[in-house]
Amino acid sequence: MNLAPLMKPASIAVVGASQRLTRATRVVANLQRFGYAGKIFPINPRYSNVLGLPCYPDLGATPERADSVVVAIPAEQVPDVLRAAVANGVRGAVVLSSGFAEAGPEGKQRQAELERLATDHGLLICGPNCYGVFNIRLGASTFSADMAEPLRPGPVGVVSQSGGFSHAIAEYLMQQRCVGVSYIVSCGNQAGLTVEDYVAYLVDDDDTHVVGAFVEGFKKPDTFRQAAARARALGKPIVVLKVGRSENARQAMLAHTGSLAGTAEIVEAMLKQSGVVQVSSLNEMIDTLALLPAARRSAPRSWRVGILSGLGGECGRASDAADRAGVELPPLSAASVETMKSFMPDFASPRNPLDGTGAMYEDARLFPQLFDVMLREEAIDVVAVNLRVNVPKPGGGAPSRQFSRAMIEALPRNPERLVLAFSSFAGGDLDQDVVGALADAGVPFLESTETAMLALRHAREHRRFLGRPDLPPSSPAAPRAGARLSGTLGNADAMQLLRDFGMPLAETVAVKDAEAAVAAADRLGYPVVLKIDSPDIAHKTDVGGVRVGCGDGAAVRAAFRDMLGEVRRRAPAARIDGALVQRMIGGGREMILGVKTDPLVGPAVVCGFGGIFVEQLRDVSLRVPPIGPADAAEMIAELRGAAILSGARGRPPADTRGLADAIVRLAALADAYRHSLRAVDINPLLVLDDGHGVVAVDWLIELA
Amino acid sequence: MNLAPLMKPASIAVVGASQRLTRATRVVANLQRFGYAGKIFPINPRYSNVLGLPCYPDLGATPERADSVVVAIPAEQVPDVLRAAVANGVRGAVVLSSGFAEAGPEGKQRQAELERLATDHGLLICGPNCYGVFNIRLGASTFSADMAEPLRPGPVGVVSQSGGFSHAIAEYLMQQRCVGVSYIVSCGNQAGLTVEDYVAYLVDDDDTHVVGAFVEGFKKPDTFRQAAARARALGKPIVVLKVGRSENARQAMLAHTGSLAGTAEIVEAMLKQSGVVQVSSLNEMIDTLALLPAARRSAPRSWRVGILSGLGGECGRASDAADRAGVELPPLSAASVETMKSFMPDFASPRNPLDGTGAMYEDARLFPQLFDVMLREEAIDVVAVNLRVNVPKPGGGAPSRQFSRAMIEALPRNPERLVLAFSSFAGGDLDQDVVGALADAGVPFLESTETAMLALRHAREHRRFLGRPDLPPSSPAAPRAGARLSGTLGNADAMQLLRDFGMPLAETVAVKDAEAAVAAADRLGYPVVLKIDSPDIAHKTDVGGVRVGCGDGAAVRAAFRDMLGEVRRRAPAARIDGALVQRMIGGGREMILGVKTDPLVGPAVVCGFGGIFVEQLRDVSLRVPPIGPADAAEMIAELRGAAILSGARGRPPADTRGLADAIVRLAALADAYRHSLRAVDINPLLVLDDGHGVVAVDWLIELA
Repeated sequence: MNLAPLMKPASIAVVGASQRLTRATRVVANLQRFGYAGKIFPINPRYSNVLGLPCYPDLGATPERADSVVVAIPAEQVPDVLRAAVANGVRGAVVLSSGFAEAGPEGKQRQAELERLATDHGLLICGPNCYGVFNIRLGASTFSADMAEPLRPGPVGVVSQSGGFSHAIAEYLMQQRCVGVSYIVSCGNQAGLTVEDYVAYLVDDDDTHVVGAFVEGFKKPDTFRQAAARARALGKPIVVLKVGRSENARQAMLAHTGSLAGTAEIVEAMLKQSGVVQVSSLNEMIDTLALLPAARRSAPRSWRVGILSGLGGECGRASDAADRAGVELPPLSAASVETMKSFMPDFASPRNPLDGTGAMYEDARLFPQLFDVMLREEAIDVVAVNLRVNVPKPGGGAPSRQFSRAMIEALPRNPERLVLAFSSFAGGDLDQDVVGALADAGVPFLESTETAMLALRHAREHRRFLGRPDLPPSSPAAPRAGARLSGTLGNADAMQLLRDFGMPLAETVAVKDAEAAVAAADRLGYPVVLKIDSPDIAHKTDVGGVRVGCGDGAAVRAAFRDMLGEVRRRAPAARIDGALVQRMIGGGREMILGVKTDPLVGPAVVCGFGGIFVEQLRDVSLRVPPIGPADAAEMIAELRGAAILSGARGRPPADTRGLADAIVRLAALADAYRHSLRAVDINPLLVLDDGHGVVAVDWLIELA
Repeated sequence: MNLAPLMKPASIAVVGASQRLTRATRVVANLQRFGYAGKIFPINPRYSNVLGLPCYPDLGATPERADSVVVAIPAEQVPDVLRAAVANGVRGAVVLSSGFAEAGPEGKQRQAELERLATDHGLLICGPNCYGVFNIRLGASTFSADMAEPLRPGPVGVVSQSGGFSHAIAEYLMQQRCVGVSYIVSCGNQAGLTVEDYVAYLVDDDDTHVVGAFVEGFKKPDTFRQAAARARALGKPIVVLKVGRSENARQAMLAHTGSLAGTAEIVEAMLKQSGVVQVSSLNEMIDTLALLPAARRSAPRSWRVGILSGLGGECGRASDAADRAGVELPPLSAASVETMKSFMPDFASPRNPLDGTGAMYEDARLFPQLFDVMLREEAIDVVAVNLRVNVPKPGGGAPSRQFSRAMIEALPRNPERLVLAFSSFAGGDLDQDVVGALADAGVPFLESTETAMLALRHAREHRRFLGRPDLPPSSPAAPRAGARLSGTLGNADAMQLLRDFGMPLAETVAVKDAEAAVAAADRLGYPVVLKIDSPDIAHKTDVGGVRVGCGDGAAVRAAFRDMLGEVRRRAPAARIDGALVQRMIGGGREMILGVKTDPLVGPAVVCGFGGIFVEQLRDVSLRVPPIGPADAAEMIAELRGAAILSGARGRPPADTRGLADAIVRLAALADAYRHSLRAVDINPLLVLDDGHGVVAVDWLIELA
């Protein structure tokens, strides 16, 4: 989709602009104020000029076709205006008006009209009920919120399903952090374009190097995944703050924009696999967006961080925060320590984090010397300088101005090195003399140690994601021809389907009577387990449908009768086909492998340890197909109990490659049946000792 | 200890004040600037007056004895001045100078001199190497950092082992948040008074209602626990930001102030039991300190929170943040929903969080109506209003000014209700017109949804702590008379010691040879387990010293010989006393119970699930003695795997009361032997089905 008419309009019509200060008039005023160089056409039959510009009665009357039209008039008049836009060849429309899907049944109907215009005529609609689109570089502010000056064009594109946050994030980045912004997009009700479309546009936009998105719910997960794949190819990070972990949040979002959130875990898995940087607060988002452009330029190979602070207390705090965020603060090299001892006070013990001590504020030579050592230190890749950079109070000192000057002067000595500055906590106006100068020198400023460390981790993880081997091709295997499966599968169908995808299954013999069970057991070898064979019983143990440890023929015979009796008593309505006989397999680690599905995203493969781990600790990991061996290995490593597989206490390690292979196979199955699969539950999957593979012992498959 | 001369000095001498702008001169200037009403005595033999005040040659020459002396002169001169202070009856000394324990061997010696003066003469020493003490109400700024005006006296006392943070936290509270501060204390090297002494003082200080402490390491945990007990009696919260979770932080702190951090988990357990509010970032600390004074005044019984926002996107975000913080956002009552539907736009769906929609900014009547409903809503106890309160940009709107006015007008309609305001993220100067007016009306302003929700949880948890039944008396049981135990205890001693404290043990028979083992097994009943009996073998399984499931006499005989043979081979140096015979006990949940000790805090009891849970998931909980049944129950509930004990899948619940009782008994043992106990390891402790108690199966006790 070519969004250029909307995102880079050469000319803009503004419907509803007038000589009073309406919302539309403000759009015209902003276009003028921000130096938009394209043509502006105020549209209003009642005026001949608005703010010094000729005003036209309708969209057909403009001297040339407008690329984009801004609509800020009562909702009921909007469809007519958009029809006129289509009729006159206008290709983009920013509908600021509210009164659509968020506004009851009548509004919903109105929005449906907009959706038809978008679908039938390819009109690019932003909104309705939005703040609009702001191309910062062009000053093309088809945007309704007041925006303080100065604007700062730059590499960060912001798109948000909350108008207020689109504005707040972008404004804060530009004006407090001196981080340049390419676009601000408020999606509104998404009658035409959705958050995924804007993300896709921004990923391909040359001005944009980093995309930040505030998302309440996805609508087109496939578009998003394609955009993310493209972003990966271009090395551009996408940062997402996704709302909807809690049930209450999902309800709130449904009320807000009618967004369906999707199953939180499955959406999260999709984002993770797409290499998306996921953040969980606005401060974390702002810090991450501030850091990533610089991190992308410098792109250190490794991410060992060195911290320099003038506050001894900060050194401990920063260590704790780095530890929590998983950021490495390695020891400084012996050479650096020696160098520093030559000019630091006698008692100082140079380490990482490096405490510049109070002497840093008294002796002007000390900070530049310390920074210089950190800049050249080979044991680290990133220098993070702790500075308090609030606007100085009258009479107060501003030592950070000197420190930042020293940093800027020193940078050319190692221009490759990623350098950032951060404060100990977030709050208060930032001294633009410091932050601006640092920004111009390529040094981002982050607020609060905790979010700075998180941002560093995000930058590292994104870089690691870029360096991963390519994902497997996404063309799923086709379902087996001729198979018409539906509902809860009987055992034979389930086994066949799992075998089709190469899942290793425990040898299982279906028998009708006790004697056949004994014969099967004789062949399989003792001890065996008997299980009820019924398409109507999902949870066999709940109705007494499992007998383990049958050690000989007599035990099998007794167990068979006993089991069938109990199951008939406890599940009188179930059709019983007989029993399944399996040889008991010892020594494996019991895990579960399954598929759950989300109406929006589709199927996801779930992996976890059996028993208490999955039921009470909820220690599971998820991915959405396609899943390659690297993803599967990651899924396993992510489990809190992963160490169970590594073979502690004299036990050999488990066959994690076999487990990863089973995950990949189940993902292929889920992908092939993505339109009909409801759930798969393999429980337990026994993971045997390394080299012995895995074996599924019990399974349940539900199709639509 | 009476710290009044230091904390509320009636007169202050300042050694080193001069006609140049030295650090000491600045102290005099600050005392004048902040309106200190007591006498100020500049001390300097070279001047007759300083800043308009008569200047005295030495501490003996002042017209009356000074309560406190501020010392900001080179370190080597400090001991003499303090000796003169003692000689002249000065009782408090704030030593700003550095060059002591933080400054190499010579400095350490100098600090030892100060410590002697404190110990021998009761001189109250703050510092050295500190920012000092600032009594805000009195303007008694024996404090060396620049402090911006205006000061705001009030209920929050701040004490910090980092001078920079003491200043930054207090200044931010007063000047951005309009939160009043009683004292600022920077502890420095703690030659005399330690962080615990200041906390104890502030707890008892009438001006102080909430104490905030930045702590790198404790020195007197008993003093701290006593202060915390006193704070509990007075209903005053203590908020602690404790550094030192990570090893690197512990090293950094050692370098910074020579603080030993203590074992992080044990210190944390002590703080938890003392009802201390533990925070992990400065932003969380500032928000918690801002909320608690108001929370203490209103003291809601319950903590159901209602949120009102004008940003739809915030409603989902706040729900997620509340969910993460464990804050309850209940549904609004039907009556409130009906009321709101009568005046809200047709399409609005009132719920909690309440989305005021864009209409809130357009229709001035809407916000007051919505707030009024929330103020009276009976389904909630706390109203949290989301506002963006940054200083308005030229030309920008400031709707929060109207909103806050409406809030302040409405408050008298339900003056009991706790009301707070919060922004979506932290950053930028706060509009003092709004924050100040809200503060004067008793409404705290917090920054960022995440920390606001954490602060609410902290306030609730502190209130719950105050409502808990009293802690058990802290007088520990005495060690058994006559018992002179040391080293790793032999089995008989260990069993006797555990029995002395009522720990239920599996019946265990010590035998010397195979035939005695068979006889014991015949008596105990089969199957039995054999274990090697050796004071030199701590981990029996590692050397083949355990044989389980011996089902008859022959098996016992074989196992005995086999085991002794293997142990002799694998641990040839160990003294072997024979074997222990126990009947195997089935069906219990395997847990571990132990004692570990910290050189500073003393012993702590550790509880967790056996096997993988403790070894790899590190799912354990800790408390320090004395431990009552309520603490023990909390320890059990805190385990991530606690659900294992609750009896899922048709299994009866486990005897958690029996487990709690065992914890209490082990704590009594640990307390009685606190000076000699090194470690206890009961592994496994079998927790049987409810009503059947617990039984320790294996144990290891080490004394000094």
